[in-house]
Amino acid sequence: MRLHGYFRSSASWRVRIALALKGLSWETIPHSLVDGEQRDPGFLALNPQGLVPALEIDGLVLTQSLAICEYLDETHPQPPLLPPDAAGRARARALAQAIACDLHPVQNLRVLQRIRAIAGNADAGTIWARETCDQGLDAFAELVGEGAGAFCLGDAPGLADLILVPQLANARRFGCDMRWPRLLAIEEACLSLSAFASTAPSAVEQG
Amino acid sequence: MRLHGYFRSSASWRVRIALALKGLSWETIPHSLVDGEQRDPGFLALNPQGLVPALEIDGLVLTQSLAICEYLDETHPQPPLLPPDAAGRARARALAQAIACDLHPVQNLRVLQRIRAIAGNADAGTIWARETCDQGLDAFAELVGEGAGAFCLGDAPGLADLILVPQLANARRFGCDMRWPRLLAIEEACLSLSAFASTAPSAVEQG
Repeated sequence: MRLHGYFRSSASWRVRIALALKGLSWETIPHSLVDGEQRDPGFLALNPQGLVPALEIDGLVLTQSLAICEYLDETHPQPPLLPPDAAGRARARALAQAIACDLHPVQNLRVLQRIRAIAGNADAGTIWARETCDQGLDAFAELVGEGAGAFCLGDAPGLADLILVPQLANARRFGCDMRWPRLLAIEEACLSLSAFASTAPSAVEQG
Repeated sequence: MRLHGYFRSSASWRVRIALALKGLSWETIPHSLVDGEQRDPGFLALNPQGLVPALEIDGLVLTQSLAICEYLDETHPQPPLLPPDAAGRARARALAQAIACDLHPVQNLRVLQRIRAIAGNADAGTIWARETCDQGLDAFAELVGEGAGAFCLGDAPGLADLILVPQLANARRFGCDMRWPRLLAIEEACLSLSAFASTAPSAVEQG
């Protein structure tokens, strides 16, 4: 199995966590987003979107981090990334999508580069990113609530957690004040696990 | 069942299509995004994100259009919105997310308002929206390919189609040149079905 990704890409880190939680091993094919390598013709032939991650597995090329995580969960059910009931799955997916659809896309590198170009200065991108992270994580913290366990949805990590942790790293990088004690507690619980810590950008950068 | 939405919201239209494909009936609770009604305290108590759609069903409040569609598919399996096999589901979800994560969020009203404010003129938002639609739908057309059936993934409409059709409407509104013959053929096949046509913004605006 070959994972096309980039060490600092949040969406790539999500998939690395899912693979590690499932106890799977993989080969990394790096594509530097800073150097625009995701637009190389060879990679575009694999994924016409020119985005990482893409996972070569079972003779398929899978794209989109959430779709990849659901595929891994269906084909390698243990440990589960989603709750066993439809209501629980809807809640887990809604939490994941609150970040993956409403927050992360509007603060990723592609958008920041456009904002900087429109504004004519580099700070505009960072201010935008910080504000969208603050708003998005305020809402996410409300959605998660106090909860009963150490993770977003109970006592085991799952889809919502593997989306949250990379986003918190982005928020920290953008200079957010990290005003979400419950989310930071979830992050600490996650990063105490090898599946999260060993796949972090700082851990895989040299790899 | 009560659907909190807005007639012109793409994400609300997705859920209306899913409900209609499943043969379900629902009450609409409108929230004007233009007037900012999705930020009213009463609605924020239901959905702290302050976004539509939200679906009250089975004693739950579900948010996030894709999570809602998956819930409806799990609880009302016929007709299915997703293929029966894991690889097919991964492909359907990846197509849906190519629009729902990478395209729609960066051209929705909230972002356009910010772009206009940064640029200091209204046109900047429309130019941005048109360019992101062009790029996103170019990639989507490549991902769909020529295909075998009238819809994105065969002979029946599903998750990818109910995400595509509202996005094509957005692209048309932003003045895109609609250079995707295969996608327009899929749109035509979809809009020949009542589940798509009867739930379109123009059809429900008076409702």
